[in-house]
Amino acid sequence: MTFADALACLGPLDADAAADAVALQDRLAKPRGALGRLETLGTRLAAIAGACPPPLPAPVAVAVFVGDHGVLAEGVTQWPQEVTGQMVAAFCAGGAAINVLARQVGAEVVVVDVGVATDLAPAPRLLDRKVRHGTANLATGAAMTLDEARRGLDVGAEVAAEVVAGGARCLVTGDMGIGNTTPSAAIIAALTGRPAAEVTGRGTGIDDATHLRKTRVVEDAVARLASSEPLDVLASVGGLEIAALAGFVVGAAAARVPVVVDGVIALAGVVVAAALAPGCLDFCIAGHRSTEPGATAALEHLGLIPLLDLGLRLGEGTGACLAVPVVQAAARILVEMATLDGAGVTGKE
Amino acid sequence: MTFADALACLGPLDADAAADAVALQDRLAKPRGALGRLETLGTRLAAIAGACPPPLPAPVAVAVFVGDHGVLAEGVTQWPQEVTGQMVAAFCAGGAAINVLARQVGAEVVVVDVGVATDLAPAPRLLDRKVRHGTANLATGAAMTLDEARRGLDVGAEVAAEVVAGGARCLVTGDMGIGNTTPSAAIIAALTGRPAAEVTGRGTGIDDATHLRKTRVVEDAVARLASSEPLDVLASVGGLEIAALAGFVVGAAAARVPVVVDGVIALAGVVVAAALAPGCLDFCIAGHRSTEPGATAALEHLGLIPLLDLGLRLGEGTGACLAVPVVQAAARILVEMATLDGAGVTGKE
Repeated sequence: MTFADALACLGPLDADAAADAVALQDRLAKPRGALGRLETLGTRLAAIAGACPPPLPAPVAVAVFVGDHGVLAEGVTQWPQEVTGQMVAAFCAGGAAINVLARQVGAEVVVVDVGVATDLAPAPRLLDRKVRHGTANLATGAAMTLDEARRGLDVGAEVAAEVVAGGARCLVTGDMGIGNTTPSAAIIAALTGRPAAEVTGRGTGIDDATHLRKTRVVEDAVARLASSEPLDVLASVGGLEIAALAGFVVGAAAARVPVVVDGVIALAGVVVAAALAPGCLDFCIAGHRSTEPGATAALEHLGLIPLLDLGLRLGEGTGACLAVPVVQAAARILVEMATLDGAGVTGKE
Repeated sequence: MTFADALACLGPLDADAAADAVALQDRLAKPRGALGRLETLGTRLAAIAGACPPPLPAPVAVAVFVGDHGVLAEGVTQWPQEVTGQMVAAFCAGGAAINVLARQVGAEVVVVDVGVATDLAPAPRLLDRKVRHGTANLATGAAMTLDEARRGLDVGAEVAAEVVAGGARCLVTGDMGIGNTTPSAAIIAALTGRPAAEVTGRGTGIDDATHLRKTRVVEDAVARLASSEPLDVLASVGGLEIAALAGFVVGAAAARVPVVVDGVIALAGVVVAAALAPGCLDFCIAGHRSTEPGATAALEHLGLIPLLDLGLRLGEGTGACLAVPVVQAAARILVEMATLDGAGVTGKE
C-alpha cells in the first residue's frame, strides 16, 4: 500500500459506534463520567473500530523509523552520526529503552531503516527500506527531493499496512536519528507558524551555545522555504524518518487502527500528515508530552491532549509505549465492565 | 502484624542503592535524564528495595478497603448506603472498574470489609475484618472510638503483611464506601489546615445544594475537633476504610514494598499515616491526581507528585492501578536496559 492508496482509504470516525459507547459508559457500574479520560478514549476507540464495545487494542506494534541528517554538519548536537547505526544494533539486540518498555506492555518492535547514512548489517526485526543514505544538509539546500519525501511517506504507509496484516491492532510510533530534533523543529515552525525560538529545544541535552546555533539553523531554514505546502516543507527541511512517520499514521488511519504517537519527532510527522490529510488525526492518540518545546507546540496546533506527562525526551517511541496500557484499559472498560443493572446497583444519579 | 508492629519495623530508604541507581541511570544507552520521571522513580524503587537494580514490582495486589458512613444521614450524597454492599458483590464477581483495570495490569484484587453497615455473604477474595457496622454520624459525634480507629489501622497493616506474605511486591490502595469523600475531606482539612471549602468536592457528582450542605458538614466537624492529634482526627471525623488505608501504607513501608496510592480517600489515609509516621511516605507512590480538590490538597501537603492525571474520580484504586505499568517500567529499565558501553555507543554528552 502506497501513501496515495492509504489516503484514498481514509474514512471518517463511526458516529453510531461513538454514540453507543457514550450510552454504554453511562450505564456502567460507576457514577457518570467518573472514569474521566478513560471514557472519552474508549468512545474514540469505538469510533475508530466502528464497533461498541471496541476490540482490545492488541497486539501492539512499535515501528521505529530511523534516518540520518546532513544538518549534523552545522554542529546542532554533541552526538556523532555513527550513534544512529549503533542504536539500530541496540534495538535489534533488544537492549534499548524502547525494547524494555515494549516488553513491559507486551508490544513487538520493528526497526525500519528509511535513511541511515551507513549500510546496516541485516538483522531480525530490521526492515531495509532505505530511501537514501541520510538527508542532505537542510542548512545549505533541500534535505531531500520531493520524490524522496514521497518515497519516505510510502515506506511509512507500507509498514503500517504490513504490521496490521501481521495482526497488530494498536500501532505505536518510534523514531531514531541523531540530529532529528532539528528538522522536527523546522517542520513544526513552518507548519504551525511558531517562531523557531519557541519550538527549538535542547534535544539530547545540548549547551547554550549549541542551542543558539541550532535555533538559528531552524530559523534560517524556515525563512528560506519557497512554499508552505506540506510536501515541500517535508522535503526542504524534514527527515526521512519523519516522512515515514507521517505515512505511518496515515496508514494506521487507513486501516482503522489507533496509532499512539510519541514525542517531537513523531509529532512533526503528524503535523505533515494532518496538513496532507486532516482526517488521519482522528486515529491518532497522543501518548505523552515530551519536554521538547516543539512537542507542545505541535500538540496545541493539532488539538491533541497527551495521556502522559512524565518528563521524557528520549524518543524511540518510549513515551507512547508507556501510554499503551491506558489505551487498552479504556477499551477493556467497555468490553468487560458490568452495568449498574447487571451489578444490581440501585443508586441513582 | 499490628499497626504498632509495622511502625516498629519502619526503616529509612537505602541511600547506597539510590546512589547506585543514579549512577546506573547515567550509564544507560540514552542521554542523561532523558527518561524523566522513570529515572527518579526507578531510583526510588532501588532505595525502597535496598538493591540496584530493584526487583520488578510484581506480583501486584490491590486491596479494596470498604466501609460505610453514618454521615449519610446528613444527605451528603445521592447514592443510598446499600450500594456499598452491592459494589462489594461486584468486586467479588469481577465486574467492577477496579477488576477490569487490575486484569489490564495483571494485578490481584482482595476486598476487605472493615466496616460495611450490613452483614455480607462470604465470597472468594473477600476478607471479613469488620470493626463495626458502619461509622456513627460524624456530624453529631465521633465517627468511631479511638479503639475502633486503632483496630482499623491494624486491619490495614495486617492485610499489607498478608498480601506481601502471599508474594505481592507492589501494593495498590483501593477503597469503596458510599459517602466516604466527606470524612476524607474532613481529615484532609483537619490535618493540612486547609478550609473545608477548598477540600470538599462533588464526589460522585452531587448538585450545588448538596455540595454546600456537604461543605458545611465538613466545616462544622473540623471546627468541633478537640485536638489535631492524628488518631483523634481519624476517630472523630474519619472512616474505617480510611483507617485501614493508613495502616496499609505503613504496613507496605514496613515490608519495604512500594505502595501505589489512589485518590482522595487513599490520600486521607496517607495524610493520617504520615502524621503518625512520616517515614512511610518514602514508600508511597502517588498513582494519579483525582479531580477531587481534597486530593490535590493532600498531594501538596504530602509533597507527592502523581504519575497520572486523567480526570478520574471513581476511587476503588482505579487511578493507582493504571499507574502500575509506569512503576514497573521504571524498575525494568534498571533491570534490562543496556549501558552505553554495552551497546557500543560512542557518543559523549
